[in-house]
Order: sequence, then structure tokens, then C-alpha cells
Amino acid sequence: MASLTKTFGFSAAHRLHSPALSDEENRAVFGKCNNPHGHGHNYELEVTVQGEIDPRTGMIMDLGSLMQVVQAEVIERFDHKHLNHDTVEFHLLNPTGENIVKVIWDLLKPKLGASLTRVGLWETPKNFFEYYGE
Amino acid sequence: MASLTKTFGFSAAHRLHSPALSDEENRAVFGKCNNPHGHGHNYELEVTVQGEIDPRTGMIMDLGSLMQVVQAEVIERFDHKHLNHDTVEFHLLNPTGENIVKVIWDLLKPKLGASLTRVGLWETPKNFFEYYGE
Amino acid sequence: MASLTKTFGFSAAHRLHSPALSDEENRAVFGKCNNPHGHGHNYELEVTVQGEIDPRTGMIMDLGSLMQVVQAEVIERFDHKHLNHDTVEFHLLNPTGENIVKVIWDLLKPKLGASLTRVGLWETPKNFFEYYGE
Amino acid sequence: MASLTKTFGFSAAHRLHSPALSDEENRAVFGKCNNPHGHGHNYELEVTVQGEIDPRTGMIMDLGSLMQVVQAEVIERFDHKHLNHDTVEFHLLNPTGENIVKVIWDLLKPKLGASLTRVGLWETPKNFFEYYGE
Amino acid sequence: MASLTKTFGFSAAHRLHSPALSDEENRAVFGKCNNPHGHGHNYELEVTVQGEIDPRTGMIMDLGSLMQVVQAEVIERFDHKHLNHDTVEFHLLNPTGENIVKVIWDLLKPKLGASLTRVGLWETPKNFFEYYGE
Amino acid sequence: MASLTKTFGFSAAHRLHSPALSDEENRAVFGKCNNPHGHGHNYELEVTVQGEIDPRTGMIMDLGSLMQVVQAEVIERFDHKHLNHDTVEFHLLNPTGENIVKVIWDLLKPKLGASLTRVGLWETPKNFFEYYGE
Repeated sequence: MASLTKTFGFSAAHRLHSPALSDEENRAVFGKCNNPHGHGHNYELEVTVQGEIDPRTGMIMDLGSLMQVVQAEVIERFDHKHLNHDTVEFHLLNPTGENIVKVIWDLLKPKLGASLTRVGLWETPKNFFEYYGE
Repeated sequence: MASLTKTFGFSAAHRLHSPALSDEENRAVFGKCNNPHGHGHNYELEVTVQGEIDPRTGMIMDLGSLMQVVQAEVIERFDHKHLNHDTVEFHLLNPTGENIVKVIWDLLKPKLGASLTRVGLWETPKNFFEYYGE
Repeated sequence: MASLTKTFGFSAAHRLHSPALSDEENRAVFGKCNNPHGHGHNYELEVTVQGEIDPRTGMIMDLGSLMQVVQAEVIERFDHKHLNHDTVEFHLLNPTGENIVKVIWDLLKPKLGASLTRVGLWETPKNFFEYYGE
Repeated sequence: MASLTKTFGFSAAHRLHSPALSDEENRAVFGKCNNPHGHGHNYELEVTVQGEIDPRTGMIMDLGSLMQVVQAEVIERFDHKHLNHDTVEFHLLNPTGENIVKVIWDLLKPKLGASLTRVGLWETPKNFFEYYGE
Repeated sequence: MASLTKTFGFSAAHRLHSPALSDEENRAVFGKCNNPHGHGHNYELEVTVQGEIDPRTGMIMDLGSLMQVVQAEVIERFDHKHLNHDTVEFHLLNPTGENIVKVIWDLLKPKLGASLTRVGLWETPKNFFEYYGE
Repeated sequence: MASLTKTFGFSAAHRLHSPALSDEENRAVFGKCNNPHGHGHNYELEVTVQGEIDPRTGMIMDLGSLMQVVQAEVIERFDHKHLNHDTVEFHLLNPTGENIVKVIWDLLKPKLGASLTRVGLWETPKNFFEYYGE
């Protein structure tokens, strides 16, 4: 089995704040990440697809199609946005790295099917998140 | 002459919007960077000091002091903030990369004096800004 | 179980072109990657070996031996070459990232045996391929 | 299942030398890495924890706690040290990359429990080691 | 004075071969870089413009315009090409890093004028070239 | 004028300690960098040469010669060494980043002459030093 990983960048603002916690608890758990107006990151996204190498093309899947799917489903949606204010996905859901990789997985899965095996996300050069489905 | 450059990271949100332009002009000039709620970056800051090597210590200046100055004057001020909403410096000034390096220069100059020779800033891995004073 | 990964670089030209497709299909599938004279990349190769840590040496395998094997089998063969014209391996086989990692796996497997568990390849900083054997 | 990886840096000196080998064997196996006074590296450590995303916080585990554990157990112990001379762990154990990731795993496991799934270590930009437990 | 640097990537094949040298001299001077069919690189281009910060926009120049110029003059011309065979510029001129940065400078200068102050080019992560005009 | 920069890596141990200071002063000024047995780094060295582009070769200087000079004068001398114990240069001179770039400049200058214009050194990804001669 072979796998192919494409990387993508998007710049977004976010504020860590959970509706399930009180304001005081939010400040205690998330510290400066809970600042009211939010802060931001250059997110680096990794999307991995796995499969047999097609003997006619030498590819697992068409790279152009993969790029279009991720561009349409993820980058258009989140790039240059404030995740909490500008997206349906994170209007109520806390935009932690863990939740972002899961949301991106759920956006890509219907388009990529079984070939999708991993979503990775660098929030900063020191924080990395991965999701592999259930 | 020798120089020493220290790098620092801070994560912030910003919105490119100039009070000197109409809303329409702002949208035309800044595009998606003008989105109302802002977006964000992992800024990578480079601060360069230049000078003679002190023969007693083998250093241009004390590294710990340099780190404290940049931490107190820049990182505390901008890290995990929304530059437009949470800082005095960019309440009216458009937080472009060019303006940010100039503002950081102006914050550091009174503390570092003639030794400060350059402020560099990666806004993304593709956009880099530098300021050398007047 | 522990694993050890060594990275290697090689610079090569290639043209994506499959003998199983017509010229028109090749242009449609591979676009500018099908340009007749080819283009090129700084390939970054990752070779992973896994095993028990030898209590006498504290190593999974001798690093120098691993380097010699990869140097002799891969780097000498592909570095500063036009993969389509200068190598037996890709004379008829389309030099996609997927095929390159598989070919490198097949070159290394007889020398490294069961310890070889992964071959990774960055074609560009945005395209990454992996092969884990059958 | 989701995972979270935090990266950490520490600078240390080490000498590859195994008490189970003769001086001659040590020189033969480890070459210049066996030089008597040692050399050094900027180690880049990756610690991965895996688990369910807590629906209240959106996190696998509290990031601040994770950082405190690694800081206290690993960074304080090894940063700016000569591993062979200044640490109990490598006084008799050869500080190869393989042994270092295993030792760090053993230091973190009692604190992080089942959530800890991987320890990775870049010794140089060309040598990477991983340990996944037994 | 402030400066702004944008980075761009392009993948190209090239062969180092000077028409002013004999075949034997070319082999002696350029070694494996003289292999007949060429090899290739992921070139990383840096374009620096310098100037006053426009007080109305907070920018030295419009970033979108700069990107369009470099895209049209450089990336379209060289990306996914074999420099020796597919470009007028390097049909007779040896495509060394030094010549490439000079050619790119000469392509950009008529469009960017006095604001252009530097062209930088990473041929590999180990070889970097710069040109500042005459 | 064009310039060419080659990068090189070497791994070394060092201890910051100045014979011109008392033990107490050394501890106060250098903190954990003064630990008796030293620590270490993966140093990344940048050597820049500047000059006219030779119209016959398209190069500023022969890359192979430059590499041999830096290999012989710097890498052989400092790689896999404890700078304080194993080198004449830093037996009495404090191996700070500033002093290392100056020493490397002084080692290369007699071989490279006027073409040498800059020596840069990353001690860690956060500390960078440069020397330009007197």
C-alpha cells in the first residue's frame, strides 16, 4: 500500500471558548487562548490518501482532483476567516486543534471516501494534531 | 562588526483596514484580508543587534537582557491578541507587515539604542518584512 | 519497538508520462508535468528501519551501514539524473512519487530485510509519498 | 481517535560509548561520535498523546499539564547538560538516539499513562528516532 | 526604509553546460551537474522590494500586483520547464544559480523599477544565490 | 554584483566560560550555558562569497573549491568536537556564537580573500550570528 500526502496552508483567527464551561472555567482552562477578540495562526494542513497504485497512471488518485476537493471544502471555508464568527462549523463548537482536524475529516470524508486515512494540522510549529476517523 | 539575531514567535489576529480609505476601497485593496472579523498568523520575529564583541564576555550584548526587552515590549503586547481590537498601537493604524515592523522598531529603539539595526517579520512562510530605521 | 529514520537528498529531473496512455490522455492527466523535456525536484528521501535496540551498542542497526546501502542503491542511481532517460527503473515506468517510493523500497528490501518498514519521499514541500510494502 | 503532538527543544552534549565494548570496538562502531570529550546537538523532541476528544473542552488533554510534565521530567533533566557526565540515566547507558527515546518514554509513561503513544526525537535534521513502548 | 520579500516556488530541470567551454572542460568544471539529460530542483525564489510605507495603505506596494508580475514574468516562464531546452533565456546561457538570479532580475526590473532591490534563489537547501543589480 | 551562499552543518559541544571572569561572574553571565561539562548544538554555517559572474562558466567561483576549503578549514576542525577541549582556537577563547563566526572568518579569509563577504551561524533555530570582517 502507498500513501500520498498533500499540504495546504490557511490563515485564520480563533478564540478557544467552550459553551459548556462558565466564563471563569474558560479562562482557567484556556488562559490567553480565551482572550475575547481571539488571536490567529498560519495553519498547515496535511491530507493523506491511501490506496493501490493505478498501473495505468502510476498514481493513487488524481492529484488535481484532490487539490480541488480540499480547496473547495476546507480552504475556501476557513482561509482568512475568524473561525468562531465566520463559520457555521465553529459557531458553537470550540475551535481547538482536535476539533478542527475532526471537522475537516468530516468535510472531506464524503468526497474522498475510503481513500482518506489521515488529517494532520500544525496550529503552530510546536502544536500538531491528527485525526484518523472512528 | 558582528551581529546577533534572536527569533521570537507570537500568534495574533489582525484585519487589514485603513481608516484613510472608504469601505469599498478597503475591500478593493485588501481583498479577503479586509474580512470584518479578521484572520490570523503565527508571526516569526527577528531582532538584530550589531556591535563590537566585548573581549571579556565574547558577546555583543547580554542575550538574557535582549530576550527580556523583546518579551516585555513586544511579545507581552501582541501575543494572543487581536491587533486591531486589543492594542493601542493598531487601534487606528493598519496592521500591515510594514507597519508592524516599524511599530516594533519604535518600541525596541528606546531600550536597545544604536545596537538595534534590523527588525524582520515573517507574517506567513511566504511574506517577509524588514525595517532598518530612518 | 524503536525505529530509526535517516533522511537523504537527491536532485533529479523527471517527466510524468505513461506508455499506457495516449499522448492526449497524458497531457490531460498530467498537465504541465507532462511537458516533453521534463522538469525537476530536490527529492527528500526518508528511510525507516525498525527493530529491537541492541543492548551492547544501544542501536537498532549500524548507521554507517544503513547510509552506505542507501547511498549505493538509491543516491548513486538517481542523483543528478533525468529519471526517464538515465535510469533503467523509469525508462518505461512513469516516475510518479508513488512509483518512486515503491521502486526505492524494492531496491532497499533485499539489503535491509525485515528491518525496513517505511520509505517516504518529499517531491516538493507540498507533495509527500510513502510506501510500506505489500 | 485523535492525537496531539507537542514539540520541545533541548541542547545537550553526548559521547557515544558503550561500556559493553572495548575502547577499540567503541572507536570502530561509533567513529567520530566516540571522541572522548563528546560533541552535541539541538535535540527536537516530539511527544504524542492519543485519546477521545473531551466534548466539554474540545481537547484530548490539557495542553498546559502536558507541557509541565515534559518540562519537569525531560527538559529540566537534559537541557544544557552533558548527557554522559551530568545525568543518572546515561551515566552507564550509551546515549544513542534509540536509548534516549526509550529513556524519555520511561520517564513520561508514569505521568501520562495510556494516553502516551509515541516519543520522537530529531538528533540532527538527518537522524530521527521513535519509540512506541513494548 | 522598509522592505517586503515575497517567496515563490518553481520546479525545473537544468543542465550546467557552457558553450564557451569544451565538452571535456564542462565535465571537469561541472561534474555530475553536466550530465547530458540534466537533473532538477525545487527552486525557492525571493523577491525583495524596498520603499516608503504609503501612509494611506500602510504598504510599500500592492502585494497582489507584485505577485502578478512575478507570476507572469518568472513562474509562467520557468515552472515545470527544462531551462536549457524550453526557455529562450537559457538556450545559450548556462543556467547556473548566478545566471538565473541575474536573468530574473532583468525580467523584473522593467516592471518593478527602483523598488526592486534584491533577487534571492535557493537552488537546494544548501545553495543560495543573490543578485542586487549593477 | 552577485553572491553565492553555501550552508554546512557541524555538531559540537561547548561551554560558555570566560577566563577573564571569575567563576561566580561566569555563572551569573552565562547561567546554564556555563555548566561545567558543557552542552551542544547542531551548528548551521553559512558562507557567502561575492563577485562578478565569470562569463565563461556563469559562476562567481568554483563551488567544489569553496566546499573543499570550508570542509578542510572548518568542518574537519570543529565537527564532532568539544570546542573548549578539542580545539586550539577555543582553548582560551570563550566559544560564544560571536567568537565562533569571527574565528571561522579568520580561518577562511586567507583562502577566500576578497570574495568572502559574510559568515553566518545558526547556533539554534532561535540564535543567529553574523560576521562581516573589520
